[in-house]
Amino acid sequence: MTDLARLSIHTMTTKPWTLEQAAAKYAAAGVGGITVWRQHLAPYGAKQGREILRRHGLTCTALCRGGFFPAVDQAGRDKAIEDNRVAIRDAHELGAPQVVLVCGAVPGIPLADARRMVEDGIRAVEPEARAAGVNLAIEPLHPMYAADRSCITTLGEARRLCERIASPAVGIALDVFHVWWDPQLADEIRLAAKWTCGFHVCDWRAPLRDMLNDRSIMGDGCIPVRAIGQQVRAAGFAGFDEVEIFSDELWAGDQDALLARILAAYRQHCV
Amino acid sequence: MTDLARLSIHTMTTKPWTLEQAAAKYAAAGVGGITVWRQHLAPYGAKQGREILRRHGLTCTALCRGGFFPAVDQAGRDKAIEDNRVAIRDAHELGAPQVVLVCGAVPGIPLADARRMVEDGIRAVEPEARAAGVNLAIEPLHPMYAADRSCITTLGEARRLCERIASPAVGIALDVFHVWWDPQLADEIRLAAKWTCGFHVCDWRAPLRDMLNDRSIMGDGCIPVRAIGQQVRAAGFAGFDEVEIFSDELWAGDQDALLARILAAYRQHCV
Repeated sequence: MTDLARLSIHTMTTKPWTLEQAAAKYAAAGVGGITVWRQHLAPYGAKQGREILRRHGLTCTALCRGGFFPAVDQAGRDKAIEDNRVAIRDAHELGAPQVVLVCGAVPGIPLADARRMVEDGIRAVEPEARAAGVNLAIEPLHPMYAADRSCITTLGEARRLCERIASPAVGIALDVFHVWWDPQLADEIRLAAKWTCGFHVCDWRAPLRDMLNDRSIMGDGCIPVRAIGQQVRAAGFAGFDEVEIFSDELWAGDQDALLARILAAYRQHCV
Repeated sequence: MTDLARLSIHTMTTKPWTLEQAAAKYAAAGVGGITVWRQHLAPYGAKQGREILRRHGLTCTALCRGGFFPAVDQAGRDKAIEDNRVAIRDAHELGAPQVVLVCGAVPGIPLADARRMVEDGIRAVEPEARAAGVNLAIEPLHPMYAADRSCITTLGEARRLCERIASPAVGIALDVFHVWWDPQLADEIRLAAKWTCGFHVCDWRAPLRDMLNDRSIMGDGCIPVRAIGQQVRAAGFAGFDEVEIFSDELWAGDQDALLARILAAYRQHCV
């Protein structure tokens, strides 16, 4: 087992690459896993996507992403639920063990209402997820996205949601970018251990030049990535480290060089 | 008592105005209070500042700001403590009942260390604050500032800090911009009531175009300002509503028009 066998990379990290390119490059570098974004899967479809991953010997760690449950009217909420059903079917066909949920938020919908819509939405699709053997991985997002991206903002809130739904098919994807600031993080990692089914890494370089697409490679920012990873593993998580970096700057550069930098950073700052 | 008697405005809200201009304009509009920023006080000094506020019949609600305790070496931390001593003396001389603390954070200093430095710093200056009759108001800042501005990010964390220090001269300034996303907010407002000595309002318009200077006037964003204010008052807070808006866009426009918009928004969305 090489030290990259437990590493997975999100196709969004090398956004300019097709799924076929990303899979070939990751596998050639010795990376063990891949998390597939739907926009990268779309040109191929789930069946062909599965074949690509199989051919390159990659473990599929997740399909990104479902969620976005809150909407101003019932038609919007129904549409979101239908989209999540599609994601679950695609994940099953792709061989992804889970769909990562960015739960959603809409300016103008009060947070308490949005949170109810998220819970209702997850409950609505949970039976299909369970039947398909696909986990729904709630990803608490950084509070700076509370207005328009995710009303679920802390690990504690995601954990309480899991406790209420109490399904073996509903868990948590923990991303260091979103939770590193939390004063309760160490305790919440332990409390969430039972539900944790995904672990995402990247870094936060201050100040961010863009709230969405200015993430950094591990070690280039101020998040104690290794320390958080050790806590997550000490709590019992045994899955992949998934590198998920959104960066206009990094996407604009050479993606082979980016992949090489990520592997070096992973060895230096994560394992 | 007019409906503006309990309204205070931060001089930073009308940044282009001098303290003399801001005081005259606020008072003429019927605003009862003013929170003075140090950069606006600097050209006058605390004694003359006090005289300006007295002449216009304004209640001074706070001096902004102290804090910024973490630093990479002892000399830096000592310098921060000395600066807070100056702020406390200025607040006393100005007639401000409190100094608002932006606690500080430095990329590269682990959060746990920064948090200790904040607590050490507050404890170091607390005796002088108490002797001067000046409160130190810890302002938990939005987690998006955790890397470089404040390692104290939640109301709960600020409250636990107050409980540990347990001084009548240490409290909390609660700003809706920083805490509105918190899933524990309602509970934490009640738990923090004993310590709450300041209440700041503005709004969050999604998406923010700038993490620092793109705040909005109450009602122009998605924060339930009135509902949060009602919770804060129901918990026992009886002080001023302080309008604190940083906005490059609003600063670039006519400040008289801005003041008029703030008063209208305050009447419509806050009281």
